[in-house]
Amino acid sequence: MAGTSSRQLVNFSAPRSFATTFKSKCKETLFPDDPFRQFKNEKPSRRPQKIFQYLVPIFEWLPRYNLKLLRYDILAGITITSLAIPQGISYAKLASIPPIIGLYSSFIPPLIYAIFGSSKHLAVGTVAACSLLIADTIGEVAPPKDNPTLYLHLVFTATFFTGMIQLALGFLRLGILVDFLSHSTITGFMGGTAVIICLQQLKGIFGLKHFTHKTDVVSVLHAILSNRKEWRWESAVIGICFLIFLQFTRYLRTRNPKLFWVSAIAPMVSVIVGCLFAYFAHAEKHGIEIVGHLKKGINPISIKDLNFESKYLPATIKAGLITGLVALAEGIAIGRSFAIMQNEQIDGNKEMISFGLMNIVGSFTSCYLTTGPFSKTAVNFNAGCKTAMSNIVMAICMMLVLLFLAPLFSYTPLVALSAIIISAMLGLIKYDEAIHLFKVDKADFAVCMAAFLGVAFLSMDIGLMISVGLALLRALIYMARPATCKLGKIADSDIYRDVEQYPCAKGSPGVLILQIGSPIYFANCNYIRERTLRWIRDEQLSDSKSDPIEHLLLDLTGVTAIDMTGIAALTEINRILEAKGTKMKIINPRIDVMDKMMLSKFIDIIGRESVFLCIDEAVEACRFSLQTEKGRQTDLSDQPSAV
Amino acid sequence: MAGTSSRQLVNFSAPRSFATTFKSKCKETLFPDDPFRQFKNEKPSRRPQKIFQYLVPIFEWLPRYNLKLLRYDILAGITITSLAIPQGISYAKLASIPPIIGLYSSFIPPLIYAIFGSSKHLAVGTVAACSLLIADTIGEVAPPKDNPTLYLHLVFTATFFTGMIQLALGFLRLGILVDFLSHSTITGFMGGTAVIICLQQLKGIFGLKHFTHKTDVVSVLHAILSNRKEWRWESAVIGICFLIFLQFTRYLRTRNPKLFWVSAIAPMVSVIVGCLFAYFAHAEKHGIEIVGHLKKGINPISIKDLNFESKYLPATIKAGLITGLVALAEGIAIGRSFAIMQNEQIDGNKEMISFGLMNIVGSFTSCYLTTGPFSKTAVNFNAGCKTAMSNIVMAICMMLVLLFLAPLFSYTPLVALSAIIISAMLGLIKYDEAIHLFKVDKADFAVCMAAFLGVAFLSMDIGLMISVGLALLRALIYMARPATCKLGKIADSDIYRDVEQYPCAKGSPGVLILQIGSPIYFANCNYIRERTLRWIRDEQLSDSKSDPIEHLLLDLTGVTAIDMTGIAALTEINRILEAKGTKMKIINPRIDVMDKMMLSKFIDIIGRESVFLCIDEAVEACRFSLQTEKGRQTDLSDQPSAV
Repeated sequence: MAGTSSRQLVNFSAPRSFATTFKSKCKETLFPDDPFRQFKNEKPSRRPQKIFQYLVPIFEWLPRYNLKLLRYDILAGITITSLAIPQGISYAKLASIPPIIGLYSSFIPPLIYAIFGSSKHLAVGTVAACSLLIADTIGEVAPPKDNPTLYLHLVFTATFFTGMIQLALGFLRLGILVDFLSHSTITGFMGGTAVIICLQQLKGIFGLKHFTHKTDVVSVLHAILSNRKEWRWESAVIGICFLIFLQFTRYLRTRNPKLFWVSAIAPMVSVIVGCLFAYFAHAEKHGIEIVGHLKKGINPISIKDLNFESKYLPATIKAGLITGLVALAEGIAIGRSFAIMQNEQIDGNKEMISFGLMNIVGSFTSCYLTTGPFSKTAVNFNAGCKTAMSNIVMAICMMLVLLFLAPLFSYTPLVALSAIIISAMLGLIKYDEAIHLFKVDKADFAVCMAAFLGVAFLSMDIGLMISVGLALLRALIYMARPATCKLGKIADSDIYRDVEQYPCAKGSPGVLILQIGSPIYFANCNYIRERTLRWIRDEQLSDSKSDPIEHLLLDLTGVTAIDMTGIAALTEINRILEAKGTKMKIINPRIDVMDKMMLSKFIDIIGRESVFLCIDEAVEACRFSLQTEKGRQTDLSDQPSAV
Repeated sequence: MAGTSSRQLVNFSAPRSFATTFKSKCKETLFPDDPFRQFKNEKPSRRPQKIFQYLVPIFEWLPRYNLKLLRYDILAGITITSLAIPQGISYAKLASIPPIIGLYSSFIPPLIYAIFGSSKHLAVGTVAACSLLIADTIGEVAPPKDNPTLYLHLVFTATFFTGMIQLALGFLRLGILVDFLSHSTITGFMGGTAVIICLQQLKGIFGLKHFTHKTDVVSVLHAILSNRKEWRWESAVIGICFLIFLQFTRYLRTRNPKLFWVSAIAPMVSVIVGCLFAYFAHAEKHGIEIVGHLKKGINPISIKDLNFESKYLPATIKAGLITGLVALAEGIAIGRSFAIMQNEQIDGNKEMISFGLMNIVGSFTSCYLTTGPFSKTAVNFNAGCKTAMSNIVMAICMMLVLLFLAPLFSYTPLVALSAIIISAMLGLIKYDEAIHLFKVDKADFAVCMAAFLGVAFLSMDIGLMISVGLALLRALIYMARPATCKLGKIADSDIYRDVEQYPCAKGSPGVLILQIGSPIYFANCNYIRERTLRWIRDEQLSDSKSDPIEHLLLDLTGVTAIDMTGIAALTEINRILEAKGTKMKIINPRIDVMDKMMLSKFIDIIGRESVFLCIDEAVEACRFSLQTEKGRQTDLSDQPSAV
């Protein structure tokens, strides 16, 4: 027989022990990046220091820090401060909390991140989507207009939960959860959020007094149109001027990336111009609202304000959980993409721990949710930051602002803030990405549009959940209906490939070769059984003239795992085939699959001689047995005539 | 270059249209068994008749029915009737509904199934697990003791919803849902249910008057022990005698399968002996309760009793949904396993439609939930049934019992029913299967035990949900952490296999070959990126003396699908590797993957020359380019010394 010599190669050694496989699976699930690798080759005496440096990265880079690097970081730090002030005030207004909280949130959290964070380029700050999400969730149980103090305390509490959840996820190495927010979901969610945030800003642009608490497109448009009488043309004209100015600076940046600083300081310029204008033109008399009193002084302690009343607990935990995951997804994805540009590694689980600490400490010091927003991080990167020191510089600048300059910003017109937010949001609606998704993958496009439309027309959390649910559903359907294909031999080679993809590939008479992709689970083993039997039926229908299928070869190269229901399904297929006189052969079972097949005695059922290492050998063996049989039949039919 | 000629084989033809792939995916998802195949080769004139016969199978087999078959079916029908009477009464007691409903449920539903069902061996009847599940769910909102009529009407309504859900699932071809109840879940659920049902029966055995409504082990044991004073020794002795008799007949069957009829008629014998004993010994005077009055006459119409009040709707829908899925899982699995023995095909989706019709019509005619229980079907099969006619025979026998004999059964002692139920349940606790699971697959064992312990100590629906959740979680973790392995060449062949599984397989210097199993999705692409980079790092650490990795070959044979996030991850890996001077090559992308790669221009990014059909060609190409480079370097380093 042709392949006998090499067939002895199939590894039938005893299955690995449960401890071995369990340890390796845990490692792959929880420590895919192998964070302890770096300590293995260290001397034992230096190990504690290395581990400490790993956990608190500032001790790794600070000793090697020098004045040359500081120069770059100071420049970057000042640039992001100029962005942090208008963004802080605007997003705090979006979250319906006092504007000064937005400034506080750019003082303490960046310091914490600088100590524990592992990204060099990430700039800490508040984000629009999460600000609105908090307002949406907390506002339901404690409307900010009814009791602003209670509302503010609940926002701190939600921030505390966000931090605890992020910290717990990081310690439990559950970075895997963030993996379930797909790129398409994030794209759709960001786009939908941008749309509803822009619409919210029309309140500021038109200088409306009455507005809706709801965030969906229909309610907001209705509120704007039904309050037509309140529209103030002065406010609208100024808002549109600011918006044109801001969009022009963004346009400049896209034309010439070196001019990024123009768009980076444009919001600050808008705020200063707005303040001067409001101060000298007494804007509030013309119906242009201003931010109002901003108190001097740094963050007051808020740890005693955290509110754990059971009445509000569901809302604060919900807000903490959803914003925590969204903020992590944004922060980690952004940190990672900038690290890739510089060819560095980011440890997602460690990032979660630093985000968690940053938000917990933040919630104790009158800050609300912070993460690594895209706009600020991009500005930080372009401004040439070298280490997390730029965050420290921003914190120091912000402290100075809080101590001395805060009251100056009280004249900021709301319409300028609205223009700043709209301008930032317009950049987050990625039409081209949606079009690309539509062209390449309709299912991904559906996931993206579910998030977009769900956020725009229902609410942010429901939109996000629908989209994640749809993505999971798609993954489960994939899993429940794995691809199977018929293989054929490509002429003049010993390569077997899908006959649909390579029509030149030809099968062998009496032999059907199927390739199964993806693990065989409880969820797909009924399908695999039905589909395999259908392949045989179809093959016999199309090949009605030629020989019946006597050998079924299952190529298991693509099957990385199998469970007990899967083994039962294969056993059943084997039983059905035996009843029909067809023999089943298994090709290249992978290590995990082989372990299970040995343990469950499946190998003993089909026999070791039915397991092959490659398709070609199996086909040879089948051909040999077919010829022997035919030979025998010929002998038998010859005999009577000879007698 | 070695492989150029065969490399032209890689199929770069234009991606298939969305309509083509969508149609084929829908077919695989919803019609994996291709039910319309049989009509394709039919003459158009005969097609309507064939389709009608397909939808209503009785018209297919009845015209070919003959007296010889009838003889077998009458025998089988009478045998299952003798089982249906005691089971019907017992399970109705379990569901806290009047015993006569249990008899009604073996009259109409079998007739409906005989018309629409496609299994030849399935015997229709009530099942213990679902009976208790209904009592549990409906009893919460309407305790049967407070208002038995309301409770009964809600049970009919739940049965109606069960039918509607089964019908809808069948029409929508959502048989896929049943696939998510894994074999391990069912084993654990059945075992847990058997335990709590046995414990419930201790009430009957000990002749208790007071008992608990809860089903969990702790509450029931507490109720039995705290009511010690009510224990009746007479009842217990009779119960144990019946139990020993029933278990002995089961033992006989396992010793000699031909004596199956002894265990099949044993419950009927117990009931008759019990009735005679109760009648002549005036058992009720000695504390042995009897079933009580059973009304003569066939099923009254109950369509007007269906209760759709919004107050009870959640409970009835919940009961309908859970029992519907459990009953389907049991019915389809059992029908299928008997069909396999006879080498026949069962269409799961069509079975759902017939179960649905049977339950809907049942709910209109005073029946509660029916399906194809294992015990009855096994008896039917062993008694030699040939077609669904045995169900019709049972229905006719049951009609005669209802019309003439029902009052005779009113003397049945409850303790005999309890013994029948316990005896049936003991057979459902599969210790050996659990031990087998523990040995072969710890995760499957955990799923099984979650169902078992959840049902035993919490409640039936929660136990089921925990187990399904755990199984899905495991599948998602599988999906999020697909196996990757390093391949090496097996000496004297061109086969590349996992170096962990085949330690004799050797890599090529400067080339790292990785095989990725399972689809690349949003849920695992972060992992795949991290893991690939770690493979490269590990390889370079271990091979520190030898050449750096210059080529990464990704074998995508096992990757049957990819989404946009996956494509983005591959693009990112490529970018990171390029920065390190490593070249990425792709081997054997499958048809779906190739389509996406072409559409998203990924192929243009890595270049068509980096896509290979098999590993050997790719390794050859790498070796060639490495040699050329080395040659050039030698040339360069030679030149100065030559000058």
